Amino acid sequence: MASEIHPLDPLGPEEIAQASGAVRHVFPSESLNFRIITLKEPAKHDMVQYLEREHGKQPLKPRPMRCARVEVLVKPAEGRPELHELLVDLASISVIARKKLEGKHSYIDASYMKEVAEACLADERIQDEIRKLDLPEGSIPVVEPWAYATDGMNDMTERITMCWFYCRHLDHPDANYYAYPLELCAEMSEQLKITRIYHLSAAPEEEGEEGDAASNGHTLRPYDRRKIHDASASEYHPDLRPSPRTTTRPLQVVQPQGPSFEIRGHHVSWEKWTFRVGFNYREGLTLHDIRYDGRSLFYRLSLAEMFVPYADPRPPFPRKGAFDLGNDGAGITANNLKLGCDCLGTIKYFDAWNHTQSGEPLKLPNVVCCHEQDDGILWKHTNYRTGDAIVTRSRILVLQTIITVSNYEYIFAFHFCQDASIFYEVRATGILSTAPHHLDATDKWPWGTVVAPGVMAPYHQHLFSLRIDPAVDGHLNTLAIEESKPMLFGGGDDDDDDAASVQKKKKKDNAFGVGYYTEQQYVEREGGFDLDVSKARVFKIINENETNPVSGTPVGFKLLPQPSQLLLAHPDSFHARRSEFGQHAVWVTNYEDDDFFPAGRYTMQSAGGDGIASAIQRRNADGAARSVRNADIVVWHTFGSTHNPRIEDWPVMPSEKMVVGLKPVNFFTGNPAMDVAVAQQEKSKSVLYNGSRANHVSDSRW
Amino acid sequence: MASEIHPLDPLGPEEIAQASGAVRHVFPSESLNFRIITLKEPAKHDMVQYLEREHGKQPLKPRPMRCARVEVLVKPAEGRPELHELLVDLASISVIARKKLEGKHSYIDASYMKEVAEACLADERIQDEIRKLDLPEGSIPVVEPWAYATDGMNDMTERITMCWFYCRHLDHPDANYYAYPLELCAEMSEQLKITRIYHLSAAPEEEGEEGDAASNGHTLRPYDRRKIHDASASEYHPDLRPSPRTTTRPLQVVQPQGPSFEIRGHHVSWEKWTFRVGFNYREGLTLHDIRYDGRSLFYRLSLAEMFVPYADPRPPFPRKGAFDLGNDGAGITANNLKLGCDCLGTIKYFDAWNHTQSGEPLKLPNVVCCHEQDDGILWKHTNYRTGDAIVTRSRILVLQTIITVSNYEYIFAFHFCQDASIFYEVRATGILSTAPHHLDATDKWPWGTVVAPGVMAPYHQHLFSLRIDPAVDGHLNTLAIEESKPMLFGGGDDDDDDAASVQKKKKKDNAFGVGYYTEQQYVEREGGFDLDVSKARVFKIINENETNPVSGTPVGFKLLPQPSQLLLAHPDSFHARRSEFGQHAVWVTNYEDDDFFPAGRYTMQSAGGDGIASAIQRRNADGAARSVRNADIVVWHTFGSTHNPRIEDWPVMPSEKMVVGLKPVNFFTGNPAMDVAVAQQEKSKSVLYNGSRANHVSDSRW
Repeated sequence: MASEIHPLDPLGPEEIAQASGAVRHVFPSESLNFRIITLKEPAKHDMVQYLEREHGKQPLKPRPMRCARVEVLVKPAEGRPELHELLVDLASISVIARKKLEGKHSYIDASYMKEVAEACLADERIQDEIRKLDLPEGSIPVVEPWAYATDGMNDMTERITMCWFYCRHLDHPDANYYAYPLELCAEMSEQLKITRIYHLSAAPEEEGEEGDAASNGHTLRPYDRRKIHDASASEYHPDLRPSPRTTTRPLQVVQPQGPSFEIRGHHVSWEKWTFRVGFNYREGLTLHDIRYDGRSLFYRLSLAEMFVPYADPRPPFPRKGAFDLGNDGAGITANNLKLGCDCLGTIKYFDAWNHTQSGEPLKLPNVVCCHEQDDGILWKHTNYRTGDAIVTRSRILVLQTIITVSNYEYIFAFHFCQDASIFYEVRATGILSTAPHHLDATDKWPWGTVVAPGVMAPYHQHLFSLRIDPAVDGHLNTLAIEESKPMLFGGGDDDDDDAASVQKKKKKDNAFGVGYYTEQQYVEREGGFDLDVSKARVFKIINENETNPVSGTPVGFKLLPQPSQLLLAHPDSFHARRSEFGQHAVWVTNYEDDDFFPAGRYTMQSAGGDGIASAIQRRNADGAARSVRNADIVVWHTFGSTHNPRIEDWPVMPSEKMVVGLKPVNFFTGNPAMDVAVAQQEKSKSVLYNGSRANHVSDSRW
Repeated sequence: MASEIHPLDPLGPEEIAQASGAVRHVFPSESLNFRIITLKEPAKHDMVQYLEREHGKQPLKPRPMRCARVEVLVKPAEGRPELHELLVDLASISVIARKKLEGKHSYIDASYMKEVAEACLADERIQDEIRKLDLPEGSIPVVEPWAYATDGMNDMTERITMCWFYCRHLDHPDANYYAYPLELCAEMSEQLKITRIYHLSAAPEEEGEEGDAASNGHTLRPYDRRKIHDASASEYHPDLRPSPRTTTRPLQVVQPQGPSFEIRGHHVSWEKWTFRVGFNYREGLTLHDIRYDGRSLFYRLSLAEMFVPYADPRPPFPRKGAFDLGNDGAGITANNLKLGCDCLGTIKYFDAWNHTQSGEPLKLPNVVCCHEQDDGILWKHTNYRTGDAIVTRSRILVLQTIITVSNYEYIFAFHFCQDASIFYEVRATGILSTAPHHLDATDKWPWGTVVAPGVMAPYHQHLFSLRIDPAVDGHLNTLAIEESKPMLFGGGDDDDDDAASVQKKKKKDNAFGVGYYTEQQYVEREGGFDLDVSKARVFKIINENETNPVSGTPVGFKLLPQPSQLLLAHPDSFHARRSEFGQHAVWVTNYEDDDFFPAGRYTMQSAGGDGIASAIQRRNADGAARSVRNADIVVWHTFGSTHNPRIEDWPVMPSEKMVVGLKPVNFFTGNPAMDVAVAQQEKSKSVLYNGSRANHVSDSRW
């Protein structure tokens, strides 16, 4: 059994039990809260050798060490819990390394958050405040606990949780309470004590204030009943909405011979592609050892981090700034995907294994789906002399995972294409985070949109970091930056006969002013770079050691970025210091084992200085900086959206798409999809519309 | 019969015959070559009133005048042909206006181009040159005539055609001759005389030269037989290729109850959308009177122009610069679409009517297809407290047309979405234009890529202009430019008690440095504007007269641009002077009847100064400029790609996608797709993959 586990496979249930068992031996008498039990991925040095043997059909041994990384909150009989990290060798089932993580916090603990909400509502001062609100009969206040985004106002050694208040006026568990934000907010300590109460400002012209009963702050305004609005404006659950439109007729994806993929364990092969599916609590879906037609392209692709800072400057709103991977975990929050709803066609689902707080394995079913889609025309040419049209359709393979982080949903999908390109698509959907809006406010919100009566949706950004660990024809790669530049206008005779070099030609011989050329620079040192659409700036990952036999240039893949505004928060703000990857669109670093997180490994209540920029700076300062030229590099792409809500994003926003691509550039010796078979109606079995919705017939001409 | 014609319907066959008949009466003894017989769209003033009556279910009369616009090349018994434009009233079948178009050329005449190719090959000097090439036995030279892109070297009163030479080494009519460019080129006069011969430079370090036999120029190099390469590297026709991959299993789109659209004549209704499909020789597909749920959004959407300038500065290559709409016509070059190949599912095809040179109607079958697609998840939310997930799937309606312009193909598609957004997707595919490459060249091409032995594909740009004629809740609209800007860092107490205004707050009260806000400016004057991703600059088309009842802001639609490098050719070059729309990404002008073309109506051999920038400048200079604020405006978006070929684009390039969007922004009072029914497996009938390709079963849990 163990011999079938691939070194890149996520931990299985037995391994999780073994790891927690080994850790329990270390802390025999303490109460343990297992926060993380995950695969510590093998050292790349070992793994590369293993993969070479695997692809070369050689004996697989020696296998890289199989190791679990465990984070556990150790609660002694007396005193505060401590966070420990341990490494467990799964061959010997023994702890091989351990350390106490001082001043670090693990990701959000769902059961603790539930305790927070309960303790908050049970607090007498909060009950007082709620009474002052004078909510309508039957309305139920709801507490939404959020991780505290560092704002410098608190000591960071303990967990702090922000409690935002909403209410439900409808007697339905799925009523949309985000439609009824209250003007109340509380800060809660690790020990579940209310440490501060806020009365939120509800109009641009209004100041917020501390409303702690102890300090006898301003009285909370009673709830404005005019805010209660029609369910159709704010509810999304079908139980609470008018009947849906009935005009959308069924559309089915039928694959009579089954799908074109083949999956064994975590190994996927499809249309010349092979890769391995990984999954962990934090990044969720990861992809490994990605090859096309046997040639290595990428060692690992993953979403490495995302940050959602809110624009509302009024305290305590600057405490809204979510690291949805570092704090919440894209694996932990992954949805259980449903056949026919989240995906169409013939679907393979991957399950994942997480664990309970006490260390027992816990299945996360259907967290990743794998299926094919038709993607329109792949390539076409009609010879106008003969009228003969040759057309092929694009089939793509989709690896999709969906996460829910409180109010928001994100749909993450890798698209593999027959022409050897990969696209990473992010869709943002779900419910906007909201704040109270006073119906009699006179000014317009400079940083928000009123989306329903009494509901302001603040502006915010979504900044994602896609981590690209390339292996373009091998592990020694270079980041190249290419720009398209106009030649100097002018020309005439070249009076310097020796000056026949192409470089000089670039500056001359452009008598008609139409010439342009590309200039390429190889990046030598780690750093961050920006996009420049006006120069058609392109980032390429090339292999300087492999020359394309036809074009005579190094083989490579290029990044098709999603051009995005970068972080708007001030560089000196905690938001900026904590999310360093938001400073630039493209980063390159030297590969280091375990260097996965561009905002640092511990983002919960981080104070900054743990991110990619600081790491580069440190390596430069201490002389450890190495060249990234012809080296084992990692490329990180920052992209996202400045999301200034529209009312059309309410109550659940229609998916907003962002797309990043990776395309071969002079890597192959031609279009790798030329061998895709010509499209045929016998196989597609499309139907001709004959003018009425009800009657439609198969085209018999084929 | 006539009463069923909608004023926006393209001309039908009878109308085409009537129009050409009326014109023939004007020129009874001359030989006529009908170049254009098309609908002159009704004056907007009349049309708006008509549409109001139509949507208000009022009597439709009076109808706007139904009128044909005709361009005809009139060839007298003696002397040069003249181009005339005539307007024919189709009620009285009489010419109501006519003028001679001095110094203008109509779009490319396919039969004339065929004559050019034949005359070129028959020319004795060309035959001499071909003999000098010493082509291998059985190789067939091919002449590809191109419209002459003005370079200032010729008088422009006559048509000039550039003849580029290729050859076929395979005995198959669909052999890819672009794979064998010859070092020969000729310029041909209107009267089919060779006026100049060029021996093309074939290496970056090599000069080109005039090779006119009369001037006894340098001798043409014999054809280098080493260039003849394996068919698999350059052929695309399945007859000439190895067997295709067999791994792609069929995928069918099945709509058991038929499609969700209903089409009567040119009127389409689907999922709250209604619009009319138009089509003409030049723009191809046009869309009119676009409404959602009865509310007016756009009066007209169309691709208005495209320009493809090449970067190769060596004469005569600066003569490669194609206006694929103005010179070739996206209607004329539209493909006859095939069921199951160009489109999947249940398909409605629209035919169009063109005409022969002698004015008889000529059917262009299946030039537009209309069908539905599944587009993944429309919106989703999981209530993490109950685990209840609500998910809807996005159905889109696609209106697609595909054109072939010599070597290239373009796939143009409007996507209508259930959430009231529209996307315009362009895919570029087809074969790269090529130039000869000397196998012994020593330098790298600064402006091209070697894609096969002896084949250089020059860099070039594709610049598209999407014309957006908005009618957002009416015809008085305003272009607004919004940017997201960081607040000044700082804050503290507001010591000026009177300074409570929001504007001042923007500059203060940002103690944590996280605040940002939006600033919006209304455009007052016609002009061109650039994108700025770094400021998240957004262009909105708003209606200042209609305020959203919830958000309190003007209703609007926003443009989601395709960020693109603008024209690289020098502003003083002919390329730039002829393609003025390439200077800026977004233009706004006042609406004028017949103002459809941002590079001017007559692009063939144009000299510049006819485009959108010159028109604005003229209106400013002569005092005719009007405010574009709260006016009937037109917005033009320039986008495209700087296409520096990859070898993966050879021999037929995989589709390269560009996408522009139009999205409601505070137009509705919520997500207009909230009423889309929840996705259900009973309707989707997806299939669970059970681990083997051959066996797959329906999921019976549902």
